[in-house]
Amino acid sequence: MDVPLNIKSIMSHAATVAADTKLVSRRADGGFSRLTYLEAFERVARLAHALDRLALSAEARVGTLAWNDHRHFELHYAIPCTGRICHTVNPKLFPEQIRFIINDAEDEALFIDPEFIPMMESLQPHLPTVRHWIALCPASELPKSSLPNLLAYESLLSREQSTYDWPDLDENRASNLCYTSGTTGDPKGVLGSHRSIVLQCMSQNMASHIGLTSEDVVMPLVPMFHVNAWCMPYSAPMAGAALALPGPHVADASAMTDLINREQVTFSLGVPTLWNGINQYLNASGTRIPSLSRGVIGGAAGALQLYHDMDQHGVRLENGWGMTELSPIGSYNRYLPGHDQLEDDVRADQRLKSGRPLFGVQMRIVDEDGNSLPHDGETTGVLEIRGPWACSAYYGKPQEHDWFNTGDVATIDPSGYMRITDRVKDVIKSGGEWISSIEIENVIMSHPGVREAVVIGVAHQHWSERPLLVVVPDEHYPALEPAELLHYLDGKVPKWWVPNACEFVDALPHTATGKVSKKTLRENFTRYQWA
Amino acid sequence: MDVPLNIKSIMSHAATVAADTKLVSRRADGGFSRLTYLEAFERVARLAHALDRLALSAEARVGTLAWNDHRHFELHYAIPCTGRICHTVNPKLFPEQIRFIINDAEDEALFIDPEFIPMMESLQPHLPTVRHWIALCPASELPKSSLPNLLAYESLLSREQSTYDWPDLDENRASNLCYTSGTTGDPKGVLGSHRSIVLQCMSQNMASHIGLTSEDVVMPLVPMFHVNAWCMPYSAPMAGAALALPGPHVADASAMTDLINREQVTFSLGVPTLWNGINQYLNASGTRIPSLSRGVIGGAAGALQLYHDMDQHGVRLENGWGMTELSPIGSYNRYLPGHDQLEDDVRADQRLKSGRPLFGVQMRIVDEDGNSLPHDGETTGVLEIRGPWACSAYYGKPQEHDWFNTGDVATIDPSGYMRITDRVKDVIKSGGEWISSIEIENVIMSHPGVREAVVIGVAHQHWSERPLLVVVPDEHYPALEPAELLHYLDGKVPKWWVPNACEFVDALPHTATGKVSKKTLRENFTRYQWA
Ligand SMILES: Nc1ncnc2c1ncn2[C@@H]1O[C@H](COP(=O)(O)O)[C@@H](O)[C@H]1O
Repeated sequence: MDVPLNIKSIMSHAATVAADTKLVSRRADGGFSRLTYLEAFERVARLAHALDRLALSAEARVGTLAWNDHRHFELHYAIPCTGRICHTVNPKLFPEQIRFIINDAEDEALFIDPEFIPMMESLQPHLPTVRHWIALCPASELPKSSLPNLLAYESLLSREQSTYDWPDLDENRASNLCYTSGTTGDPKGVLGSHRSIVLQCMSQNMASHIGLTSEDVVMPLVPMFHVNAWCMPYSAPMAGAALALPGPHVADASAMTDLINREQVTFSLGVPTLWNGINQYLNASGTRIPSLSRGVIGGAAGALQLYHDMDQHGVRLENGWGMTELSPIGSYNRYLPGHDQLEDDVRADQRLKSGRPLFGVQMRIVDEDGNSLPHDGETTGVLEIRGPWACSAYYGKPQEHDWFNTGDVATIDPSGYMRITDRVKDVIKSGGEWISSIEIENVIMSHPGVREAVVIGVAHQHWSERPLLVVVPDEHYPALEPAELLHYLDGKVPKWWVPNACEFVDALPHTATGKVSKKTLRENFTRYQWA
Repeated sequence: MDVPLNIKSIMSHAATVAADTKLVSRRADGGFSRLTYLEAFERVARLAHALDRLALSAEARVGTLAWNDHRHFELHYAIPCTGRICHTVNPKLFPEQIRFIINDAEDEALFIDPEFIPMMESLQPHLPTVRHWIALCPASELPKSSLPNLLAYESLLSREQSTYDWPDLDENRASNLCYTSGTTGDPKGVLGSHRSIVLQCMSQNMASHIGLTSEDVVMPLVPMFHVNAWCMPYSAPMAGAALALPGPHVADASAMTDLINREQVTFSLGVPTLWNGINQYLNASGTRIPSLSRGVIGGAAGALQLYHDMDQHGVRLENGWGMTELSPIGSYNRYLPGHDQLEDDVRADQRLKSGRPLFGVQMRIVDEDGNSLPHDGETTGVLEIRGPWACSAYYGKPQEHDWFNTGDVATIDPSGYMRITDRVKDVIKSGGEWISSIEIENVIMSHPGVREAVVIGVAHQHWSERPLLVVVPDEHYPALEPAELLHYLDGKVPKWWVPNACEFVDALPHTATGKVSKKTLRENFTRYQWA
């Protein structure tokens, strides 16, 4: 039968197998909102009517700036299931980036958590396409605001019907839009389709990969503005699993462990920095979280010690590699009972691998000329991928190649396990967010005491990576101190981009073609100790 | 990316994650053929070249009459991955049905296990489209035969290259053809596509459903000519699971338990009759099969005692419902740890349900006028289904409706669990094979002592169902005995179709419109005891 793979099919499946399953969110005020999926889907229907009433165009991009909660979940269904595009905007970016992104996407409406309203007020004059502003709150909590005709989400819903005649949309229709700043230049949009979302979620839910079931309660720490919380608002209902959403409290480890115990969370997902926070809290407080047995650590590499510590807390972490352009998971290191039979050090090493490709994803490593390299577990090459949920071009940009160059460097072993060993792209990932080394370099080069400078990412226990500034000082400049250079960046780049340290060297390593070899430099600083 | 879901993608995924994983088959002579997937795929490449060399047309139907072994596995890849259609013919059907099916499909070539060659020799003159006959054996075992230019499979392969430049076929291209006799009239062909196979396997492999992993060794007892062994030649490699194929020994429980222990089989699938055989063998012999922990029982309903007995043998049986038209699995009753907490009788009842729809399948129950009925676990209605791997029309027949009428009667409960309660279609399933009650009735009505007669299926411990002949005798006919009527069928219907018993009644129940109510009759005979 010609039945499309669309997001509606996830909704109808969940309504069949998980009607009474819970969707809980922790609110900003610390309280809880509790719905069943059936109740949530009724609200989704109301929201769909409301979107129609706002007269958004048939393929409108509808932006969100929100934490992980039930309202953001509802937007993930009502927007794409009415044929529109759910554009999750990362509120942690700088205002100029947010402005660029919303204008590039030409969002017609924005749904905003109240805490982001002040920021949006200052941007509003520069966002000509946005016709509707909706605050994600009840009418009673609607803040006074300069945003034109700001509406309360709950008022919109209250006047609508709780059923909707969902169209059976073509599976190739665009459904979700997410910008990545993990590239050089301006952030780039990655457009997902109904098909890519459904296939990503089916593959995630295969027992060889994430494999949720109706006995799981899933707490996505990773935000929905990071590739839809790695698709959890779709994958969990598809598997009949419950959702426990952290709201804005995601970095508060005490609140998160409280949520785990209260809702008997079995499974969670986040970047290493968030797991570090939970680990430290558990170590320090002695709190126990017996229901949580498994979690995904992804978005950056986690330290072995973190895996071991979390084992002690009864949580088996599994490494997942992905990227925005892959919507997002590409490989997964599923724990298999056979792994327990491995020698300790082999087992430890095994866990740090990025896993095997999800069914649907093809991976290869290539040399500088694009030649395929052997999958022997030793040879490193630039990782390229292909698959039905990989993007072939950035939003509004011309079509790219058949294989997508990830900018990651990896080995692949004969059993298909991939391991990230380095990165060729000029970006640094700190706590799950991207820092552009090139932009920092451009600023620092304007300092008169600097002859040459580069910024590289160096492993950091808490943030996974932090930028290190490496400078060849100009010998004519008097008494240059590292601190002077770091101060120099203040106000010129976002605060959390400022490198944690600056090291002076006599010369930088160069490649044969005369460019600075960041690869060699990263190798030289592999064992760098942060103060 | 526009990457199609085709069978090639299963092959390439298995080559990545399961290159060295084993594919073992037990041969007719009792020996074993052992390959890795990589070796098997090399043979698949050779076979693909051989198919090209036979100059089969681009969309040729290529028939197979074969047991579950590595050669049949290879045909399941080489035929569809070169764009042709793998047509698995059920060798257990009567010669006239086989003749009808091969002619209806217009098979260009037939790949035949040597034991079926004598049968095919007598049919050959009536199969005008078949241009090539290949015996599935090495040249040394090629039997003398009247089949024109009979070739040995291994000779074909030996002269070809072990790599092939596989085309990236469109996912909607037809790939597999399987006839069902579970309908009235002639057997009907069900055409699967690359897309329907890949999606069925992805959904099977979701942790909520069958959920194989690379630690599984799968022994499909269900034959590949029954909807590709419920897709195991595709699902197992997709999950990186090994395959242990029983060859022709599938009904020999001693050989099967030997295979389980030898290959450390973890998972098996079959109809109740085959599980009954294994259960009886284990009970009688005291043999243990510790590696086998889980199995699918499907194709017909199994008795609760069988589930309990197999629990004692350490094998948890899970009920899967499906049909050829669904390629084949539609719902699955996955064991969940929470089920252990249920009261004994609730738990027992829970296990007999046909499970919840696989993601992708939509189910509804309808009344005689096609109105949807409530999913309250009580109301029964005719089960209708929809989904990307359901067939919308039989091969060569005009397109049917949006929803496929299964001919099964079921309840659906609020948690989505479906339970088959009856069947409206006029067929009986005995040991996994269909018997047409109408054809038996047509024969028996020609007996002068019969005034009215119907054949119904009645539950049978070993065969799941067996036909019972219910007759209103003609009062003018002298001294009619049930045995006379059963003998009368000899030679007029296949031997194993002859009902196990014949009961005389004064009158048959009729519906309001005057038709015999088989439903009422089945109810009257629910507790019928076979002699
Ligand atoms: N499990 C992981 N281990 C190491 N690096 C990762 C992992 N997951 C993601 N990354 C990095 O994050 C990038 C994708 O970032 P993003 O598009 O923001 O999700 C990848 O290209 C990698 O550089």
